[in-house]
Amino acid sequence: MSSSIKTVGVIGAGVIGASWTALFLAKGLSVIVTDPAPGAEAKLRGYLEEYCAAVPNAICPPDECLKNYTFMSDIDPYLATIDLIQENGPERLPIKRQLIAHLDAKTPNHTLIASSSSGLPSSEFITECKNNPSRILIAHPFNPPHLVPLVEIVPHPRTSDEVIATARTFYASLDKDPVVVKQETPGFIANRLQAAVCAEAYSLVSRGVVSPEDLDKTITSGLGLRWALTGPIMTNTLGGGGDFGHFMDHLGPALRSWLDDMQEKRFDLGDGERVHALKETVNGWVEGVDLKRVERERDGLLAELVRGKVDATRAD
Amino acid sequence: MSSSIKTVGVIGAGVIGASWTALFLAKGLSVIVTDPAPGAEAKLRGYLEEYCAAVPNAICPPDECLKNYTFMSDIDPYLATIDLIQENGPERLPIKRQLIAHLDAKTPNHTLIASSSSGLPSSEFITECKNNPSRILIAHPFNPPHLVPLVEIVPHPRTSDEVIATARTFYASLDKDPVVVKQETPGFIANRLQAAVCAEAYSLVSRGVVSPEDLDKTITSGLGLRWALTGPIMTNTLGGGGDFGHFMDHLGPALRSWLDDMQEKRFDLGDGERVHALKETVNGWVEGVDLKRVERERDGLLAELVRGKVDATRAD
Repeated sequence: MSSSIKTVGVIGAGVIGASWTALFLAKGLSVIVTDPAPGAEAKLRGYLEEYCAAVPNAICPPDECLKNYTFMSDIDPYLATIDLIQENGPERLPIKRQLIAHLDAKTPNHTLIASSSSGLPSSEFITECKNNPSRILIAHPFNPPHLVPLVEIVPHPRTSDEVIATARTFYASLDKDPVVVKQETPGFIANRLQAAVCAEAYSLVSRGVVSPEDLDKTITSGLGLRWALTGPIMTNTLGGGGDFGHFMDHLGPALRSWLDDMQEKRFDLGDGERVHALKETVNGWVEGVDLKRVERERDGLLAELVRGKVDATRAD
Repeated sequence: MSSSIKTVGVIGAGVIGASWTALFLAKGLSVIVTDPAPGAEAKLRGYLEEYCAAVPNAICPPDECLKNYTFMSDIDPYLATIDLIQENGPERLPIKRQLIAHLDAKTPNHTLIASSSSGLPSSEFITECKNNPSRILIAHPFNPPHLVPLVEIVPHPRTSDEVIATARTFYASLDKDPVVVKQETPGFIANRLQAAVCAEAYSLVSRGVVSPEDLDKTITSGLGLRWALTGPIMTNTLGGGGDFGHFMDHLGPALRSWLDDMQEKRFDLGDGERVHALKETVNGWVEGVDLKRVERERDGLLAELVRGKVDATRAD
């Protein structure tokens, strides 16, 4: 199925939808985009001019990309020609339910429908689908999708195994790195891991153990560099001389004592006063930072890093 | 003081000590190394031949580096000529206490004594120091020190502010990124943040939500790429359109609900059966992986990444 995906429909052309569109175009696909917002077509054009040129390892030059998409205020007449839909509608259940039911009714039975939903599980928004909900799943990108390879594929219990496999193959064929979330879980995987770090970061900064600037530097100059290359399980394994069990036996007790201390001193996100004080502390740092430059530098380095990693893998 | 640091004494020449030595040499310093282990001198030579060439943004060519260090089986007669000591002794309190007291007694009053201790707080191992414990602190590197910029500077309550500032300036002058841990805290900063991610990773893999391979990919293809460039606080701030408060107001409730679910389902490191099952699951993945290649690729990309980041900062 994935090799036969030539035309993608993008529903919703905000930042995420536009970024997906740029990715699909740069990887040689045709895209039909729709968005009901006033001025959406012109905005999309602006995004694409910027994003298409930034896609790492593109196979279609930016000028060509801009010829391979069509913006339609009404996409319904074209739904039969679309092989995969990437839906980026608002994250509100009644809207999502109606939109997904509409797409399910109007597309051919085999069209894969992938939602970018970052929070709503698909089992909740397929309830009105009368046609074939087994070809519906979540393909949650990591922002911005045209740069960051991660895609979380989250099926609902009735999504077919074939559709999960097709989705995995399709996103992988775009140089994305799909992961499959086997059970619907609040926050999926990435947001939970991120929340774990944030919670401890808030606790440390809030208790005055470290400044917000130094907290961030601990990640960007240390942990994050390593995590860009090996994940926590592999890092543990290498730390155990190639044996995860050895790592757990030797460092498990220390890990446990740190986790106990973290648990005892954990930051309460419901404590308004502490949250307010934390905001003040963070603002005291951020006010002096040129955020536009931080963002520009991050995006430049991100594209370089992704390119470097793809090259390294291909050189194997 | 930092600009007058020309000669460093490295106590303990295992992997960490050798890696520190390579860094100091590549940055143009002279190093006197000691280690009581049999064969330590030859081993050090081997490490240095490999590491010196790998230091990002070196100012001293590898051949020259190898001329600028001396291995001494007894370093005591040379302690008066050393400006800073990087101590990498065993992480056992009685040994550390004795070693640090010895260094404190034998070095001139102004020599900065930095311990690479990853766990023991310095307030516990300075108890026998009779001379000047105010120039003693921890400078905990992130492995391997010759590649990863992070250094956690952890003073004890009696370390002088001037010494903290000198240490910060010294490590920064070597293109390291020092952070100051203002209160002695179990695991300091990096190990706590790492433990937070590991704990949730173990929970997700152990509950079958995601495979160990996909768990790691969530980090290496998503979160880790971002964290290599912006830390959690800055990522939140950019996610709030430049306003951390806005982020907390809008995403705080979602974050809290994920954390509550994580808390409820957290992995118990004390549950031997679950730990055993997790090891089996991880081994099922790792057995099929060429770990030597993973390590080689990581080190190559790590050096490239650090070089790229330093270049980007210098181009500003």
